[in-house]
Order: sequence, then structure tokens, then C-alpha cells
Amino acid sequence: MTEIRQIVLAKRPEGDVTADCFRAETAASPVLADGQILVRTLFLSLDPYMRPRMTELNSYVPAFELGKPLTGGAVGEVVETRNPRFAKGDIVNGLLNWATHTLHDGRGLRKIDATGVPLSAHLGVLGMPSFTAWYGIKHICKPKAGETVFVSAATGAVGQVAGQLAKLAGATVVGCAGDEEKCQWAVREAGYDACFNHRTERDYGAVLDKLCPKGIDADFENAGGRIFHAVFARMNDFGRIAFCGAISEYQDKEPIAGPTKMFTIVQRRLNLQGFIISDHVALMGDFVNEVGGLLKQGKLKARETVIDGLANAPQAFMGLLKGENFGKLVVKV
Amino acid sequence: MTEIRQIVLAKRPEGDVTADCFRAETAASPVLADGQILVRTLFLSLDPYMRPRMTELNSYVPAFELGKPLTGGAVGEVVETRNPRFAKGDIVNGLLNWATHTLHDGRGLRKIDATGVPLSAHLGVLGMPSFTAWYGIKHICKPKAGETVFVSAATGAVGQVAGQLAKLAGATVVGCAGDEEKCQWAVREAGYDACFNHRTERDYGAVLDKLCPKGIDADFENAGGRIFHAVFARMNDFGRIAFCGAISEYQDKEPIAGPTKMFTIVQRRLNLQGFIISDHVALMGDFVNEVGGLLKQGKLKARETVIDGLANAPQAFMGLLKGENFGKLVVKV
Repeated sequence: MTEIRQIVLAKRPEGDVTADCFRAETAASPVLADGQILVRTLFLSLDPYMRPRMTELNSYVPAFELGKPLTGGAVGEVVETRNPRFAKGDIVNGLLNWATHTLHDGRGLRKIDATGVPLSAHLGVLGMPSFTAWYGIKHICKPKAGETVFVSAATGAVGQVAGQLAKLAGATVVGCAGDEEKCQWAVREAGYDACFNHRTERDYGAVLDKLCPKGIDADFENAGGRIFHAVFARMNDFGRIAFCGAISEYQDKEPIAGPTKMFTIVQRRLNLQGFIISDHVALMGDFVNEVGGLLKQGKLKARETVIDGLANAPQAFMGLLKGENFGKLVVKV
Repeated sequence: MTEIRQIVLAKRPEGDVTADCFRAETAASPVLADGQILVRTLFLSLDPYMRPRMTELNSYVPAFELGKPLTGGAVGEVVETRNPRFAKGDIVNGLLNWATHTLHDGRGLRKIDATGVPLSAHLGVLGMPSFTAWYGIKHICKPKAGETVFVSAATGAVGQVAGQLAKLAGATVVGCAGDEEKCQWAVREAGYDACFNHRTERDYGAVLDKLCPKGIDADFENAGGRIFHAVFARMNDFGRIAFCGAISEYQDKEPIAGPTKMFTIVQRRLNLQGFIISDHVALMGDFVNEVGGLLKQGKLKARETVIDGLANAPQAFMGLLKGENFGKLVVKV
């Protein structure tokens, strides 16, 4: 009989997420009802959007429940099945618990081909973060050759793909990241034209004026806060802002004010479009064709950090919110 | 020989526009070169967007030049012509000087049919403000039956048409205006479901919660500032914001911060689209067909304030920026 180890939400954070927001528990293996499967977690994805789920009311996905396991994108293996759609040994991708095993009815789980690429890639460059980047660049930012695109969190799981896709479209691509090593990787490996360190750079306006002398035509927004304010003020006419996240604002107790001079939206005829990738699953096939093709041709670099062991997930997640990861963050369970 | 009276920009305002920003001058009638016409101004349109033109660098239309006449939308009569496209007596619509007469090369002037509706209507319900309202409602807000639409400056030249078009689309329409009389007109004549007085109402959030209990699906934004912040926080999923103006922010010396929690754009998948009607002249025919048809059927109410005499234009414009006009503001020259 399998013992299940899992991590539950012990309390809702105020400000920074702390270790006591999580609690490790064990549970007895469940008895499967008709239609259910038991999935053993192989890789668990840690993503910034999980932070709002720990507290927010009215967030776009329901808040995590207190005392229940957190959930997230994951790759797992079916180890027991009473569902005819799934066979023992199937590798599946979808939402699973922060747990060694998840009892599941199979809805929302996709069987994946486990050959060819590392399994963790299905959580990154072939998964939700990359799909998010592709949608925002392709359907909102729509960069053209000669334009300037800015990407905050330039080496994050989403940003690293967004920047490379903008570059492949012929744009000049400028980003920011949280340390020198990331900035160097962005330029040397991911092909960014420039990337500044937002922790050591004090005057975001001045560095953007230098790196984006022709202004900014499209912004793939992951950061929010002061970085966004400086970008917003430098948007060109008919600029597009794909609003994907605002990681710099997630842990603030007091809400941060938006950029000054909202009239800029009129003057510059800006388009700001917020989006959540789960609204666009109908486009998943297009994404897989296009980005899968680029991967096969060696045209996309992917960087990930793999953390070993479910017990280390809370610490890794706290680090993610402070930008301590490099690239896509996954936990090998 | 005609003496031309005109009003020039004497100095750029800081904060509120003051009377000494304007200077009345007279000039001798010009001698027409080949291709030129002399147009006598009949009605001059005063619009909030002129305020940014008095100071802003990088505004969407060039700033007014110091010592030169201000310009604006106008209806005039051709009194002299050396341009084969125009005959003496033609009534034209386009940008003219704040002056009794404008020397013009005819570019951008449209001949209009002077019968049927009052000439001043070509500056309001058949003109640029109405075209602006139609574009923002039809192409950005896209209200559906049962949705809630908010319109700030609800009885202004743009807002009064925006509200009526949203109502005709079957939406619940809520607005705000600067005095009780305007609010009453909005509800009784223009068909708003509710309109609150933003000068006496202190807690915009509370009044919006009351008047828009199902949240706001589309916002036709004319005001900016605190009103916008309260609306922004109450947008529903997939809400649309047509950003047309920000009159409450035009005269502030210190830029006003944007709304808190820009992450709302992501959570709610909001679309914010800034627009300027001059980018969309290709759609003028569609507008004239649709809105002209509604007018003929008596389905659109229009309210205007007519000021007599060019010399009173500066005072009327200063009043406009403080919301003292009621409906479309025109000067009979």
C-alpha cells in the first residue's frame, strides 16, 4: 500500500510567503472509485501565478484551500487505473497535487509522448509557460522587424521564450533580469540585444532610454511595479502591452499605484491586454506545431532549474518569488 | 477689405488655463495664392483635447504654436476662392483657426450639406465627438445586451452619444456628470439607467457598487483620475476599456498615479485601448450611415451649449475644462 506524502496550505501569507504557510503531511493511499486513476508525480512545476492563488479572492483561478494540498502543473505516471481512458504506465500532463500521488478523475489530463525531450520540458519550453509566451508575443505583441520589444523577467520560464520569439520575428529585444549571470545568458544564449540587472540598476528610465533609443513598440509584461512604469512611459505610438503577470507586486501588503499619466494610453494609442493562457487552450495545437518545430530546428534555447524532492518545493517556491531561480523551475518528486 | 480677428496662444498654461494664455489680435486680410481659399468661421468647436495641445510635447496632435492662432474643428463658409475644388458659398467642415477667417489650402476640409440639421450639429452629434463615441462603443466597448457599461462625462459631447449607443445595444448604462441638472438630463433624455454627480459624491467605489451591482463590462473613459480608478477596480472578466480622454488629469501640475493593482488587468483579462478618432477616418462613412440613420429616426438626443462671439471662446474653453458647459460646446463666431 502506497503512503502519500503531500504539502498542504497551512495558512495564507501576508506579504512574503514564509515556511509556515506550508505543512508536510502523509495520507493513506486512497481506494479508487470507478473512473478514477492514481497518478504518481514525476515533475512538479512551480510558477509565480501560484502566489495570488495563496491569498487572492476573485483571482482568475480559485484560491488554494486551507488544509488542502496545493496544486500545479505537473507530469506524472498513472500507477493505478479504474478509468478506461488511461492505462497503467501512461505519462500524463496536467494539474496535480503537491504530493507524491494524486487521486484524479482524469479530466484535464493529457497523455504525452515521453520520448524525444526530457519530461520536464513539458512543464517549460513545451508546456504552459512557453504557450503563454507564444500567445502573448504572437497574438498581442505582434512584433515586426525593426521594432523594439521589451521583456521583463527576461530569463524566467515565460520571458526566455517570449524574448526568443520576438527576436525570431526580427525585433530588437531588450530585457531585464535579477542578476548578472541571467543577463549574460539572455544575451549570449537567448539572443537578447541587451539585458539589464534590475537589482543593481537604479534609474530604470535612464537605462531604457539608453537601450531602447527608438522607444518601445511592444512590452511583454511579467514584472509590474517600477519596471512597468518606466516601460509604459516609453511606449511608442500604437504600442502593444501583453499583460501576463506582475511578479514584483504579488508580495506587497500595500497595493502599488499604477503608472502616472494614464492619458499616455490615449496619446500613444496603446493597447494593454491582460491574458491567462487557460482561456486559449483552443490554440494549443498551433503552439505545439510552431514552437515544437522551432525546438526541433534548434532555434530555441531553454534553461531550467531542477529541485530534487517534494519536501524542498516550499523553499524553492519562496525563492522563485524573489527571483532566485534561473529559468523554468521544476521539482523532481 | 476684410479685417481678421483671431485669438492666439499668448503663453502655455501651467495647471489651470488662465485668461492670459490667450490674446486677441487683428490681422489684415490675406491675398490668396493659387489653390488657396478664405473661409469665414460660422461655428467653432471647443473640445477637451485642446488642453493637452496647449502644453504637451509629444502629444498626438502637434502642440499649438506660441503667438499663432489656436485651431479647432469648425464649420465655415468659403468667401473667397482660388481653388477649383471650392466655390464661393460652399459650407465646409474641418480644422479652422480661432478666428473670424482662415486662409486655407483646402486640404482636410469637407464640403457639407447645409440643409436638414443645424450647422452646429456637424461639430457634435454628426461630427467628431459623435464619431469618437461611435468608434469607442462599436469597436472597443462592444456592449452586449445585459452587460453594464459605464460612461464618465456622461453628458459631454462624446459621452452623451456613447451612453445612448450603449443603451441602444441593450446594455445597462451608468454614467457620472458634474451637476444634478446634467444627471437628470442623462437619465430622462439620454436614457441612462443611472447617473451620479461626481462633485457631490465622495465615495465613487460605494456608488458604483450600488449602481453597477453586477460589475462593469465596458468603460468608455473620458475622465481618468479617481473616477477611473474606482471603475477599473470593478471591471468584470474580459472587460473592455475605451480610453478616449482623461479630462480630470489635464490641468494637474503633478501627474496623477494610475490605479492600484495593475495585476487586475491580468486577473480580469482586461483590454484597455487608447484611441484617437483621426486614426480612423476610413470609417467615417460607416459612422455617418449608422448615426445619421439613428438621428433621422429620432433615436438620438443631442444637447449643446452655444456661446456667442469669438471673443468669448477663451472663457468658454476655461469653463469646459471645469465642466461648466452642458453637452457639446460650440462658439457662434
